[in-house]
Amino acid sequence: MPTYTAPTRDMKFLLHEVLELSRFETLDSFKEADADMIDAILEESAKFAQDVLTPLNRVGDEHGCVRNDDGSVTTPPGFHEAFDHMRENGWMGLAVDPQYGGQGLPGILGLACGEMTSSANMAFAMYPGLTGGAAKAISIGGSETQKNFYLPRMYAGEWTGTMNLTESHCGTDLGLLKTKAIPQADGSYKITGQKIFISAGEHGMSDNIIHLVLARIEDAPAGVKGISLFIVPKFKVDENGSTSETNGVSCGSIEKKMGIHGNSTCVMNYDDSVGELIGDENKGLRVMFVMMNEARLGVGMQGLCQSEVAYQNAVIYANDRLQGRSLTGPKNENGPADPIIVHPDVRRMLMDIRSFNEGGRAFLYWLALQEDLEKYSPDEKVRERADDFLGLMTPVIKGYLTDIGFANCVNAQQVYGGHGFIEEWGMSQFVRDARIAQIYEGANGIQALDLVGRKLARNGGRALMNISAEIDAFVAENEGNEAMKPFTDGLSNAKGKLQMGTMWLMQNGMSNPDNAGAGSVDYMHMLGITMLSYMWARMAKVALTKIEAGDDDPFYTDKLITGKYFMARIVPNIDAHLAKLQSGAEPVMALAADRF
Amino acid sequence: MPTYTAPTRDMKFLLHEVLELSRFETLDSFKEADADMIDAILEESAKFAQDVLTPLNRVGDEHGCVRNDDGSVTTPPGFHEAFDHMRENGWMGLAVDPQYGGQGLPGILGLACGEMTSSANMAFAMYPGLTGGAAKAISIGGSETQKNFYLPRMYAGEWTGTMNLTESHCGTDLGLLKTKAIPQADGSYKITGQKIFISAGEHGMSDNIIHLVLARIEDAPAGVKGISLFIVPKFKVDENGSTSETNGVSCGSIEKKMGIHGNSTCVMNYDDSVGELIGDENKGLRVMFVMMNEARLGVGMQGLCQSEVAYQNAVIYANDRLQGRSLTGPKNENGPADPIIVHPDVRRMLMDIRSFNEGGRAFLYWLALQEDLEKYSPDEKVRERADDFLGLMTPVIKGYLTDIGFANCVNAQQVYGGHGFIEEWGMSQFVRDARIAQIYEGANGIQALDLVGRKLARNGGRALMNISAEIDAFVAENEGNEAMKPFTDGLSNAKGKLQMGTMWLMQNGMSNPDNAGAGSVDYMHMLGITMLSYMWARMAKVALTKIEAGDDDPFYTDKLITGKYFMARIVPNIDAHLAKLQSGAEPVMALAADRF
Repeated sequence: MPTYTAPTRDMKFLLHEVLELSRFETLDSFKEADADMIDAILEESAKFAQDVLTPLNRVGDEHGCVRNDDGSVTTPPGFHEAFDHMRENGWMGLAVDPQYGGQGLPGILGLACGEMTSSANMAFAMYPGLTGGAAKAISIGGSETQKNFYLPRMYAGEWTGTMNLTESHCGTDLGLLKTKAIPQADGSYKITGQKIFISAGEHGMSDNIIHLVLARIEDAPAGVKGISLFIVPKFKVDENGSTSETNGVSCGSIEKKMGIHGNSTCVMNYDDSVGELIGDENKGLRVMFVMMNEARLGVGMQGLCQSEVAYQNAVIYANDRLQGRSLTGPKNENGPADPIIVHPDVRRMLMDIRSFNEGGRAFLYWLALQEDLEKYSPDEKVRERADDFLGLMTPVIKGYLTDIGFANCVNAQQVYGGHGFIEEWGMSQFVRDARIAQIYEGANGIQALDLVGRKLARNGGRALMNISAEIDAFVAENEGNEAMKPFTDGLSNAKGKLQMGTMWLMQNGMSNPDNAGAGSVDYMHMLGITMLSYMWARMAKVALTKIEAGDDDPFYTDKLITGKYFMARIVPNIDAHLAKLQSGAEPVMALAADRF
Repeated sequence: MPTYTAPTRDMKFLLHEVLELSRFETLDSFKEADADMIDAILEESAKFAQDVLTPLNRVGDEHGCVRNDDGSVTTPPGFHEAFDHMRENGWMGLAVDPQYGGQGLPGILGLACGEMTSSANMAFAMYPGLTGGAAKAISIGGSETQKNFYLPRMYAGEWTGTMNLTESHCGTDLGLLKTKAIPQADGSYKITGQKIFISAGEHGMSDNIIHLVLARIEDAPAGVKGISLFIVPKFKVDENGSTSETNGVSCGSIEKKMGIHGNSTCVMNYDDSVGELIGDENKGLRVMFVMMNEARLGVGMQGLCQSEVAYQNAVIYANDRLQGRSLTGPKNENGPADPIIVHPDVRRMLMDIRSFNEGGRAFLYWLALQEDLEKYSPDEKVRERADDFLGLMTPVIKGYLTDIGFANCVNAQQVYGGHGFIEEWGMSQFVRDARIAQIYEGANGIQALDLVGRKLARNGGRALMNISAEIDAFVAENEGNEAMKPFTDGLSNAKGKLQMGTMWLMQNGMSNPDNAGAGSVDYMHMLGITMLSYMWARMAKVALTKIEAGDDDPFYTDKLITGKYFMARIVPNIDAHLAKLQSGAEPVMALAADRF
């Protein structure tokens, strides 16, 4: 049975030492969150993840969700109780608006707790996750009445939520959607249509399920300009929030998926279901896209989460499993063989994962902090800069962290040899669960296109210029520092290659947009590698400062070793990406579609 | 439901035009196989794969194998009938020794037919595949009596076979195995022990199952020097081959695996089972390793096979699925959207896979031809050269083709977006099935270690020198040929980088073996990329010659386009591998084992 130990030491290092949250103690939301409180919350969250959610992860995979004949859905054993636990302990309201019953703590702290939940049990974490997404959409686009009515109940976990976008013939291209909304005399709408891939679509863990549904109002313009967003509750509710009769909402079937079996991914049917419009008619996508952009941070995190838990288990196995002898002489002379962690290729796989996980966590938390700054800073310049970073980096977090997170799970599974292929060892599940994160919330190719086609050039490329200047300043600041040299060299190299890639895109992407499209995923990875290099350089700086001040916690030495590994063995990937990018669209597009 | 169309056009191109099998018409085994006969066999094999095996692939995944209370195993619906079909049509004896009832056709032809079987239904293909492996071991190490007794029945498919190596505490490190063999007065042995991960271990598709079991004879030396190989039939047989009573052999359980559900992967228990020794006492591993080396070609092929079938389905989906518009203007103006194949990033994924599949097939068939030459050539020099290539390239075929084959399946699944994650579309199965090929028959890390630790330096590095000289000669021959320039440039670049990697290993691997271990997988991929570059250059030469001679089959133009893609967008990976290799063991080994 796989295990999980929340990496709270690493989280505290990032929050207190690298990002130095204490700098923001005067900001709303950070006021209440001093270091002691943050640490206490992290430790409580760790317990919940480790003790309650981890043991349910294999259970969820094995049992899956069952649609009963009456259309109800039974979630895996223990999920309901775990959800009760989550609700009763207030976890769902941690980092949301106190005006609607939230606790108003910083988003970055909510994210750290979310990381633990999702590492422990990704399929379970999606029930509160989707609820958070739906509540977010209401908070962005809803009226004050809607916010007052729905948000407190959703923040409390009394009601859960879902997002209904995809139909069988349209996922990425929402302009094609067909679900209909017919205006009623009382200002409501009757919604009819079928949605697929609806995570947490039906279950009995909450009193009501608030479905947010994209639909087309009768006679709306064709394409993306005629899409509206509706609140469609599973049960109709009166003004006091009491649920009563059903609302024509039903789960048609549960999708049989490669992974995240514990989440009820439903085909949802709406049959004259009463819905409330959110915001203006035909403006539903705007709300949805703001919400989705935030959700993409959560999905990027899922890639990291599975990579983390897979790594932890692979380390345990590599230290336990005795097989063969070290190339440099026995390391376990009294045993029948050495633990496989003595083998350089096993180390290589583990270090690949470790150096990514710690760098990726830093990148993710850094961006989560930008979200808080964008929300709470009184300084307009700070907010603008943070907003720029959020725009530019969100697709990178989503695409890069999930691509590499998945590949890491595969490598962690490889450490197990044949046992990795056997379900009871749990490594297959990490691989299968992680796989979805590359696909949903906008497939990674779409993220890359969003990055090179939209985000990169926004405001004249200001976001990239800002981060480049920040990196240059960091490198300049540390010039002549010998101990920092492996980090600043690696970072300068990565940043230089990224710059060449950016130049190439500027020179060639306008004349032929296919040049940008053909290199988009490579560019996304280049930006990811550069940002992780930057994070590693910053973490190394903090570690070196501690060591120089006499701190002998081996945690800091480990950081330097792991960061050097990243520079030596991950950064070189950027050269291959650059060469591919620079080869342009021609090789990619030369073969006629009908000759494939 | 996924489909499969055997790529017989590409196979014929390789056999007749690139490898020019007609050159060998005077050799045994090739004598009977003229072009017409080869083509006829390929077409028949294609029909069997497409019509019989392909429809059973999802069935096998969904039903899996069931162990009944009496210990018997029920294979998926249709498997038994398909196996009867295979047996009745003589497919299992195609390329084996006529002295024992085989048809004696070239191994390369058998491999091509095996590719179709395995692309159509990997789990099914393992039943005849393991039988072939077990028969191989008997043909290598068995006495004339054993060969005469077992081989005809196995070549006919009347009896099937298995390989029993792994025990729960030992896979790679067979020196640790515990299964016991106790000599009996009649010269036989009583075998007792438990084996795990036994593919095709128990089923009812054949009259008997011939288990080849590694065990330790009482009082044998410890470690790898005390391991012997035994024939242990499921049912005892009399001298006429009639099966009678059971032999203490039982399936304890069926492993619940990530993929290849249609194959019965068993825990096998041997309880005083009567066994016959193969070859000499304590020399079992030698036989096993010769057999396994050949089997590794088959496993490398499995990586290619899943990549091929996943590609074919992704192409169909990419041409069918309408979503979004081309960046350069609508390509399907009358439709609601363009097919997603218009998007450069979708093309990139498809071209990545295609250029690997065609190059990988050429590499695989080239090596299969070496096996035939090693076996049938009257020229000692030719045999020696072929044997060298087999030694050097087998781990590359196994490791590189399965690593990239798996990654390609993941990319093909990505083309499907959300539907790729839903089991009924079949893409998840290709990913899950392909995954095992990286693990079994020696995990890919072991292949890489075998390559850099043993095969590379064998006979003073003669094999690598020979292939390098062959590549140099090819490049020299084509100097000044403008049309060949993209290919010879790419090939020279790859070969140059490989040479730098080899030099680095020679200079640093001896002083510290961990340097070789840390770079072994990178080196394996470098050799794989170089060989595929060479294959592409050779295929381009053939295609150009045809085009220059006025042949207007677009097949040849497609080859040039696909080969150029490989040079532009796959070869650059070699730079990243080289940089990682050259970074050496230090970054990989610096972190103490207990600090992971």
